[in-house]
Amino acid sequence: MPTWKLTLEYDGAAFCGWQIQANGLSVQQAVEEALARLHDGEPVKATASGRTDAGVHARGQVVSIAPTRGLPKAAYERGLNTLLPPAVAVVHVEPAPEGFDARRWAHGKRYVYRVLNAKHPSPLRAGRTWLVHQKLELLAMRRAAKALLGEHDFSAMRASDCQAKTTVRKLRRLDVEQQGDEFVFTVEATAFLKHMVRNLVGTLVEVGMGRRDADSMPALLASGDRTRAGRTAPPQGLCLDEVFYDLAKGRPD
Amino acid sequence: MPTWKLTLEYDGAAFCGWQIQANGLSVQQAVEEALARLHDGEPVKATASGRTDAGVHARGQVVSIAPTRGLPKAAYERGLNTLLPPAVAVVHVEPAPEGFDARRWAHGKRYVYRVLNAKHPSPLRAGRTWLVHQKLELLAMRRAAKALLGEHDFSAMRASDCQAKTTVRKLRRLDVEQQGDEFVFTVEATAFLKHMVRNLVGTLVEVGMGRRDADSMPALLASGDRTRAGRTAPPQGLCLDEVFYDLAKGRPD
Repeated sequence: MPTWKLTLEYDGAAFCGWQIQANGLSVQQAVEEALARLHDGEPVKATASGRTDAGVHARGQVVSIAPTRGLPKAAYERGLNTLLPPAVAVVHVEPAPEGFDARRWAHGKRYVYRVLNAKHPSPLRAGRTWLVHQKLELLAMRRAAKALLGEHDFSAMRASDCQAKTTVRKLRRLDVEQQGDEFVFTVEATAFLKHMVRNLVGTLVEVGMGRRDADSMPALLASGDRTRAGRTAPPQGLCLDEVFYDLAKGRPD
Repeated sequence: MPTWKLTLEYDGAAFCGWQIQANGLSVQQAVEEALARLHDGEPVKATASGRTDAGVHARGQVVSIAPTRGLPKAAYERGLNTLLPPAVAVVHVEPAPEGFDARRWAHGKRYVYRVLNAKHPSPLRAGRTWLVHQKLELLAMRRAAKALLGEHDFSAMRASDCQAKTTVRKLRRLDVEQQGDEFVFTVEATAFLKHMVRNLVGTLVEVGMGRRDADSMPALLASGDRTRAGRTAPPQGLCLDEVFYDLAKGRPD
């Protein structure tokens, strides 16, 4: 069967998250409806690298499809965008080996979270940032972030309803950069627990405010206690930036 | 009377432009309603540096107010933002000399226009850019822009229903920069005609596409013929970036 790797960008504000829900339009539903129209009514399943929560954006969500009937690349590159709602678009298309599965083959992901640290709201950035009024200390957040790098049990940072069986994850990157009045958090890992990035950012922001000690991360992780971590940062600051694959090698070990 | 200079940021998509209209919510109406609530029902007129069209954004629109009753600065800095809809915010407040009028005292304005030059739509930038698929040539647009700098009769670049009595304007700056897959046009002048920036950008983009000669600007200006200029670039790419004043000197000559 012809197999394709589609890269999607979407504005999370328009959707109830990636996964199909009874209430509200999901990205998956919008994509599968457009794919069905492109394939003359044939249902085509879209498998994403993972779910994104309601309100979370993507610049590089990856989806695998394996339609029974082959269409030329241009059909996905151009035709699909004319059928999709404006809040979601295909930004890259490439043929993939048979059996390619965007979820199982992913060997890592990068998320970017933007915090606007300002006294006044910014209507032009409100949909892409979390507005924090209280002044944030960059160095304290960086110090805390450093202690979170590497392999840890992130139980304290996952959503209370997270279904994952193992809670050990390896953070390959957790950078905090200041860009004007914004703090940009860049987080890479092999895989993430539910709400993990938003809980990491919520916790680091409390460190930046001085409400939490920059050296308290090891004890927090050791506790495994979600109630001891910071608040879940709101979804609109988060963007799934890139998903990593090695198509030649296939599914990671 | 206490007089204040308020700087506003707004997302133009939420409004039918600055000026109060019968159909739809204008920025002026939103601001004047919030000001009236802040002043216990007393009507307060908000005078802007100029109108912005429906859909045009502002990062630095300036408004003058002269309420009959004085309130502390914090009332405008913080109180007003709690009363305004999320699509508009006060980002700077300063006391102004009596008689300050945001329209009459302005001695210049800067607009920024963003063109996204890509094959695919970008849902996360769709509301802030004009998507142009055809490849644009930076050097041709810069060459044409250079010929538009300085004092000219811009009749060919104004809206057909523009009411201005004089059509000579002085362009102090017209830069075209490439930033990744975007072209950013920065335009400064003492004053502008209706749709002038959007018509300039629409014309320069046709130069960038190769549909119009980079050396044809002097003849176009000399013709004074709006039908010979390019299309009006769509509003969502445009942002009123800054309005210039000299509060110590007062109204410009």
